[in-house]
Amino acid sequence: MKSSDNINPKLSLELYVYEENFFEKHHITDLSQLTPYLSATKKFWLNVVSLDNELLSGIADIFGIHALAIDDIVNSQQRPKLEEFENSLLLVAKMLYTKSDISRIQAEQVSFIIGKNYLISIQEEDFDLFDGVRTRLENPAGKMRKMGPDYLAYTLMDAIIDEYFLLLEKLYDKTEQLEDLIMADHHKSLLSTIYKHRKSMQEIKKVIWPTREILSAWKKSESIFLKKKTLPYVNNIYEHTVEIIENLEMQRESITTLVEIYMTNISLKQNEVMKTLTIIATIFIPLTFIAGVYGMNFEYMPELQWKYAYLSTWAIFIIATGGMVYYFKKKKWF
Amino acid sequence: MKSSDNINPKLSLELYVYEENFFEKHHITDLSQLTPYLSATKKFWLNVVSLDNELLSGIADIFGIHALAIDDIVNSQQRPKLEEFENSLLLVAKMLYTKSDISRIQAEQVSFIIGKNYLISIQEEDFDLFDGVRTRLENPAGKMRKMGPDYLAYTLMDAIIDEYFLLLEKLYDKTEQLEDLIMADHHKSLLSTIYKHRKSMQEIKKVIWPTREILSAWKKSESIFLKKKTLPYVNNIYEHTVEIIENLEMQRESITTLVEIYMTNISLKQNEVMKTLTIIATIFIPLTFIAGVYGMNFEYMPELQWKYAYLSTWAIFIIATGGMVYYFKKKKWF
Amino acid sequence: MKSSDNINPKLSLELYVYEENFFEKHHITDLSQLTPYLSATKKFWLNVVSLDNELLSGIADIFGIHALAIDDIVNSQQRPKLEEFENSLLLVAKMLYTKSDISRIQAEQVSFIIGKNYLISIQEEDFDLFDGVRTRLENPAGKMRKMGPDYLAYTLMDAIIDEYFLLLEKLYDKTEQLEDLIMADHHKSLLSTIYKHRKSMQEIKKVIWPTREILSAWKKSESIFLKKKTLPYVNNIYEHTVEIIENLEMQRESITTLVEIYMTNISLKQNEVMKTLTIIATIFIPLTFIAGVYGMNFEYMPELQWKYAYLSTWAIFIIATGGMVYYFKKKKWF
Amino acid sequence: MKSSDNINPKLSLELYVYEENFFEKHHITDLSQLTPYLSATKKFWLNVVSLDNELLSGIADIFGIHALAIDDIVNSQQRPKLEEFENSLLLVAKMLYTKSDISRIQAEQVSFIIGKNYLISIQEEDFDLFDGVRTRLENPAGKMRKMGPDYLAYTLMDAIIDEYFLLLEKLYDKTEQLEDLIMADHHKSLLSTIYKHRKSMQEIKKVIWPTREILSAWKKSESIFLKKKTLPYVNNIYEHTVEIIENLEMQRESITTLVEIYMTNISLKQNEVMKTLTIIATIFIPLTFIAGVYGMNFEYMPELQWKYAYLSTWAIFIIATGGMVYYFKKKKWF
Amino acid sequence: MKSSDNINPKLSLELYVYEENFFEKHHITDLSQLTPYLSATKKFWLNVVSLDNELLSGIADIFGIHALAIDDIVNSQQRPKLEEFENSLLLVAKMLYTKSDISRIQAEQVSFIIGKNYLISIQEEDFDLFDGVRTRLENPAGKMRKMGPDYLAYTLMDAIIDEYFLLLEKLYDKTEQLEDLIMADHHKSLLSTIYKHRKSMQEIKKVIWPTREILSAWKKSESIFLKKKTLPYVNNIYEHTVEIIENLEMQRESITTLVEIYMTNISLKQNEVMKTLTIIATIFIPLTFIAGVYGMNFEYMPELQWKYAYLSTWAIFIIATGGMVYYFKKKKWF
Ligand SMILES: [Mg+2]
Ligand SMILES: [Mg+2]
Ligand SMILES: [Mg+2]
Ligand SMILES: [Mg+2]
Ligand SMILES: [Mg+2]
Ligand SMILES: [Mg+2]
Ligand SMILES: [Mg+2]
Ligand SMILES: [Mg+2]
Ligand SMILES: [Mg+2]
Ligand SMILES: [Mg+2]
Ligand SMILES: [Mg+2]
Ligand SMILES: [Mg+2]
Ligand SMILES: [Mg+2]
Ligand SMILES: [Mg+2]
Ligand SMILES: [Mg+2]
Ligand SMILES: [Mg+2]
Ligand SMILES: [Mg+2]
Ligand SMILES: [Mg+2]
Ligand SMILES: [Mg+2]
Ligand SMILES: [Mg+2]
Ligand SMILES: [Mg+2]
Ligand SMILES: [Mg+2]
Ligand SMILES: [Mg+2]
Ligand SMILES: [Mg+2]
Ligand SMILES: [Mg+2]
Ligand SMILES: [Mg+2]
Ligand SMILES: [Mg+2]
Ligand SMILES: [Mg+2]
Ligand SMILES: [Mg+2]
Ligand SMILES: [Mg+2]
Ligand SMILES: [Mg+2]
Repeated sequence: MKSSDNINPKLSLELYVYEENFFEKHHITDLSQLTPYLSATKKFWLNVVSLDNELLSGIADIFGIHALAIDDIVNSQQRPKLEEFENSLLLVAKMLYTKSDISRIQAEQVSFIIGKNYLISIQEEDFDLFDGVRTRLENPAGKMRKMGPDYLAYTLMDAIIDEYFLLLEKLYDKTEQLEDLIMADHHKSLLSTIYKHRKSMQEIKKVIWPTREILSAWKKSESIFLKKKTLPYVNNIYEHTVEIIENLEMQRESITTLVEIYMTNISLKQNEVMKTLTIIATIFIPLTFIAGVYGMNFEYMPELQWKYAYLSTWAIFIIATGGMVYYFKKKKWF
Repeated sequence: MKSSDNINPKLSLELYVYEENFFEKHHITDLSQLTPYLSATKKFWLNVVSLDNELLSGIADIFGIHALAIDDIVNSQQRPKLEEFENSLLLVAKMLYTKSDISRIQAEQVSFIIGKNYLISIQEEDFDLFDGVRTRLENPAGKMRKMGPDYLAYTLMDAIIDEYFLLLEKLYDKTEQLEDLIMADHHKSLLSTIYKHRKSMQEIKKVIWPTREILSAWKKSESIFLKKKTLPYVNNIYEHTVEIIENLEMQRESITTLVEIYMTNISLKQNEVMKTLTIIATIFIPLTFIAGVYGMNFEYMPELQWKYAYLSTWAIFIIATGGMVYYFKKKKWF
Repeated sequence: MKSSDNINPKLSLELYVYEENFFEKHHITDLSQLTPYLSATKKFWLNVVSLDNELLSGIADIFGIHALAIDDIVNSQQRPKLEEFENSLLLVAKMLYTKSDISRIQAEQVSFIIGKNYLISIQEEDFDLFDGVRTRLENPAGKMRKMGPDYLAYTLMDAIIDEYFLLLEKLYDKTEQLEDLIMADHHKSLLSTIYKHRKSMQEIKKVIWPTREILSAWKKSESIFLKKKTLPYVNNIYEHTVEIIENLEMQRESITTLVEIYMTNISLKQNEVMKTLTIIATIFIPLTFIAGVYGMNFEYMPELQWKYAYLSTWAIFIIATGGMVYYFKKKKWF
Repeated sequence: MKSSDNINPKLSLELYVYEENFFEKHHITDLSQLTPYLSATKKFWLNVVSLDNELLSGIADIFGIHALAIDDIVNSQQRPKLEEFENSLLLVAKMLYTKSDISRIQAEQVSFIIGKNYLISIQEEDFDLFDGVRTRLENPAGKMRKMGPDYLAYTLMDAIIDEYFLLLEKLYDKTEQLEDLIMADHHKSLLSTIYKHRKSMQEIKKVIWPTREILSAWKKSESIFLKKKTLPYVNNIYEHTVEIIENLEMQRESITTLVEIYMTNISLKQNEVMKTLTIIATIFIPLTFIAGVYGMNFEYMPELQWKYAYLSTWAIFIIATGGMVYYFKKKKWF
Repeated sequence: MKSSDNINPKLSLELYVYEENFFEKHHITDLSQLTPYLSATKKFWLNVVSLDNELLSGIADIFGIHALAIDDIVNSQQRPKLEEFENSLLLVAKMLYTKSDISRIQAEQVSFIIGKNYLISIQEEDFDLFDGVRTRLENPAGKMRKMGPDYLAYTLMDAIIDEYFLLLEKLYDKTEQLEDLIMADHHKSLLSTIYKHRKSMQEIKKVIWPTREILSAWKKSESIFLKKKTLPYVNNIYEHTVEIIENLEMQRESITTLVEIYMTNISLKQNEVMKTLTIIATIFIPLTFIAGVYGMNFEYMPELQWKYAYLSTWAIFIIATGGMVYYFKKKKWF
């Protein structure tokens, strides 16, 4: 084990060895401690919280994992995938979470290597996400003890996908907020908010589509590392991804419709503004013209001397205004 | 039957035992009463109106139903599905109805477990929906007595899908209403009405698409619980779902076109408003300018003393107005 | 034949019995007259002009037709379909025609049951559509005499599909009309005309898509009632449906483009209106201001006494106007 | 050969008989001259420049060609297709060309019948298109002599598809022209030009899509009339059609984007017009009001007598104008 | 080797002969020097920097390469492709790079011929792109020495695809720039910039889509020239192309949304301009009318003599303005 000589002295991996009537937890401080378990009949789960290339290469040497699998695990931009190698099966998934606002979705890569009697899970940082699985594994009556490492991988994937639903919930809240604002004819610009919201959806979609694909591939896979008994469970979370995708699509459509409504609202408001201007201008511009006529300084303007001229002019003003108002009423302008 | 000890004392399940020449109705008050029927040669239908996890788990224990099937039944958000388990087949469907307005569609989950000689139907609340089926089952000459539990499941699905057509009818009425309003150039904002209408369609689509999928899966299934003789009937309701989907799509397209018309109407109206303003302003602004000119107080303005000045000015006013009106007529502005 | 006892006394069905060297036409007044032909070696065509459930059930009893087939035939809303039953094959098609305007397309259901040596065609009303086929069947040298009942069904379908082309022709005329109106910058609202035109297309599409599907299914079918020798002919009309669909799609695209042009034309006109207003207002509003200034009644306004004031003011008016006109010319506003 | 008796006396068909070391050209004036070649071992190409039904039926009789094949050949609206009959294979293609402007694309149907040792090509009018192929066939060292009639068909198809590229080139030129006009903010309406351009694309697409399909079908066909050795050549022109389709799609997208830009440009211009109007009106309307105030004829207006009133009013005018200009500058209106 | 006699005297091809424990680099100056290597057991890589038809035909003669393969290599517009010939396998790829601005993407064709023990790579100009591969080939401990010529082709493709990511990076920067400009409500026209950006995406897409196809074809190919051991590596770069396509699609969507925002911003600005105009005109036009009334020169106007008339008029002015402002505030116009 030459690669295990120069590993980080602070190395500490969690190792869970289990069987129907057996459970042990070890802290691995040297990779050579792993070798005995390989040929044993007991099942085990090795949880690695590090993307250190050297460490993972050391583990790959021990378990005979293909170098490309390690490449994918270490590349934190890897698209979710399932790939079958000779000695093992690689599954790369993404945990999605958001610390505060839904518009800042963060992704954390979680990879699984499933072998004959073992599961290796690799993540960059430790999240509490897998705590529930640990507890269920400790329970001697639990199903997990009886099932193989692929079932363990399923339960971890299940935990990851449950998190997606939390995000979906937050997306819904945001969509509803936008809906309320737009329906209430909110007057500030919502464009950048809508843009960010759409980007969040896109980011979730980017993870969830390939996740659905890998679960679909799992269902159809004939790998010896994936047992048939696990399939109904995998189908269960596969359906979850289908549901999430459908809900995302529906929200996408809603947002598109909302944007249309928003733009139509702008047009409607502009129409109202225009009508106000037109009503005022159409009434007063002709009146102002008449007033202007009798403000002219011509010497020979017979009306000026007429006694009822001023009164008549006001009569004209009032009648013209009344006619205009009647016309606008008839056109349903107000 | 340890799980049957602590069930709800008010337990009361409907059990119909039937054969070509036999029909009995029982009220089950203790799950242990079910056991004798299991190995019997008679067919039976157990109708459960409850989503109580404990009760359903008790039933699952007796019939050997997979725990995941119960999970799906209890989860009232489950997407319609058909899944084949070892001992039975699960079918989850959705009843859709609306109490008042089409814009408030409600969904009620109805699940079926089809076994060798039994059908278990599970719903949350009792609807009159299945009454027709009960009556037909009581009829000794009816087809249902001769056919297996899968045919019974088909008749119940048929009843559910018939309800969809009622909703479709209401959707059509609403679309026609919108059509009339928009074509009549209705002046109030229709945007939120259209938005709600689209959401109703989306909700129906969300149920009907997977329903079509499960009926398609039924047609292709090779499960021993689904007889070949039932297939033409299943095809019949499969075609109903296809028809509903096509009609939904057509209405969706109509609504899209209507929204376009609505927006174009707004533009056309705005154009009319603008033309009114432009005509008035273009006629009177130059006239007002001329009036303003002769309202100036310069000492040396020869026109002021000219006898026909005032008359000439009016002539200019009238000629200018006539020219403008001619110009607008030529441009087909009114 | 108990069902044939109480049939309509006015019952009169056309029956054509034929073989390569044989042709007879009978009028059936009692269903029991049909029985002898069933086991005979001669081929026959029974044309039924009625959707009477009782009558059709009587026929179904005689020929062993599945009850669901009769359901589909009687339901005049049935989507075009091809379904294989044990004893026969059902084909439901739609005749499309228009009495006057293309915007009122009417559909008439025509169903076919193809058996070993017979074809039954069912329509609600008698159209002249099948007259050509009758003539060809009477011709002893014609191909139809040699071929089986599936070939007869093909010729009838061919007659139906030929009618679709007539509709397509009318659609084209309407599209061209719209094109001319929009290109000529027609000033009345074309929106409801366009809307109706789109609906006509949708209605044709609703019939033609499943018709293509059933012809495709016919081509792939392995039913014993469909001979291989008929396939090139079926392929021929299958291609017709493909052609119609492509033409519909192309017209749909044209209409979409035309609507865009229509809306852009509205924008262009509005732009022209706005420019007229802006030019007039921009020229005269400042001039009116100047006139207003010298209409003020201040005692100390030195310009008022200046001899060339009035002339200078007119000079300013003319120069300002010239400047404005130059500016608008440069901006290419007119 | 009864049908060959009454053919057109002016009948003159080109017949090329060839083998690796043999080449003869005949002018056929009577269809009975064709019979000897049928059973011979030499390959031959019959080029027919006529859609005369009688002539083609005569040829069909001799070669045992299915009547539906002749129907397709004679129908000049036939969609491009490949159909396998018992004795031969039919391929219908379209030549596309344009005499002057790209907006008037014309299509000429060219059909091929491929038999065991012969190729029949049928066109309505003689084009120079096949001259290159004739020359290559005369060349004894050429590949064409060694290969079968399907290879000959391929070379003719190759010549047809090469013409498509010329059209594509012209489309590109037109698109670029439109691009330049729109980018240069051209002021005349481009809508009808764009509409015609889109129609041209549609017409090319209508031919090229099924052409791709028939080449794809050729590649997958297991007909005995199509040799495996020809496949790489067919694949070559198949790829050409894929390339043309991709380029058409890209241009379509460009045109769509250009139309969007065109419409946005209209909006931008309208915005500019509106801003001009608003700036002028917003500055001068308030000033005109002030001038109007001091044009009032009230007896008691103290300002009128004040010595610096006129000067102060001008000061107000200038300050107000300055403020407005500053405001507009800050709003980036000019 | 007659074709090798008259090749370019300046001919100089790079030839790398290698095996697990062997490495030689030769400069080929006459094509006849290649012959000995063909039958040898050692693997070799021939790198050709020329698209000279004669030279490539000479090479094709020696290696028995199909003439169509050479056609594709020489045609610099060839769409990326993978085609299996009898003696070898052709792979045409495109290198993409940009010298300065992302809006000027350039493509360079790189072709590969994979044979039993050799790889021939053909490019038009020499790029440094393959230097890394050369270095790795010189390294005796490297994997490349052990693997076949298909693995060598994979490493070269890998180098090409790595370049695509650099372009993608630049596209992202440009998109972000556009995003910033549009969000900051930039006032100059961005339309032509957006148009060019979209064209760049289109050009990358045009190359990357068929590249994905050829890698997918490689994965599924059963050619003897492609070893199974190489597949995980090919899968690796296949996934890269999938990732690039997804990212391109996401950016495309972003751009579409940005354009919508841009257009909505124009509408919003126009709305603001209109509101400014309307507020000013609506306030001052009526006031100007009133001032005009008292500027009339009628002899009998009682108000003119009233002592508080002027004051009262100002009161009216102020109250009217206040009312208008209140109205606009209530309408949320400012
Ligand atoms: Mg969906
Ligand atoms: Mg969508
Ligand atoms: Mg959908
Ligand atoms: Mg989807
Ligand atoms: Mg959708
Ligand atoms: Mg779906
Ligand atoms: Mg659909
Ligand atoms: Mg459809
Ligand atoms: Mg549709
Ligand atoms: Mg649709
Ligand atoms: Mg749209
Ligand atoms: Mg459909
Ligand atoms: Mg097509
Ligand atoms: Mg199409
Ligand atoms: Mg469609
Ligand atoms: Mg289509
Ligand atoms: Mg199309
Ligand atoms: Mg299309
Ligand atoms: Mg569409
Ligand atoms: Mg493509
Ligand atoms: Mg494409
Ligand atoms: Mg594309
Ligand atoms: Mg396409
Ligand atoms: Mg696209
Ligand atoms: Mg496109
Ligand atoms: Mg994808
Ligand atoms: Mg995608
Ligand atoms: Mg997508
Ligand atoms: Mg795509
Ligand atoms: Mg998309
Ligand atoms: Mg769009």
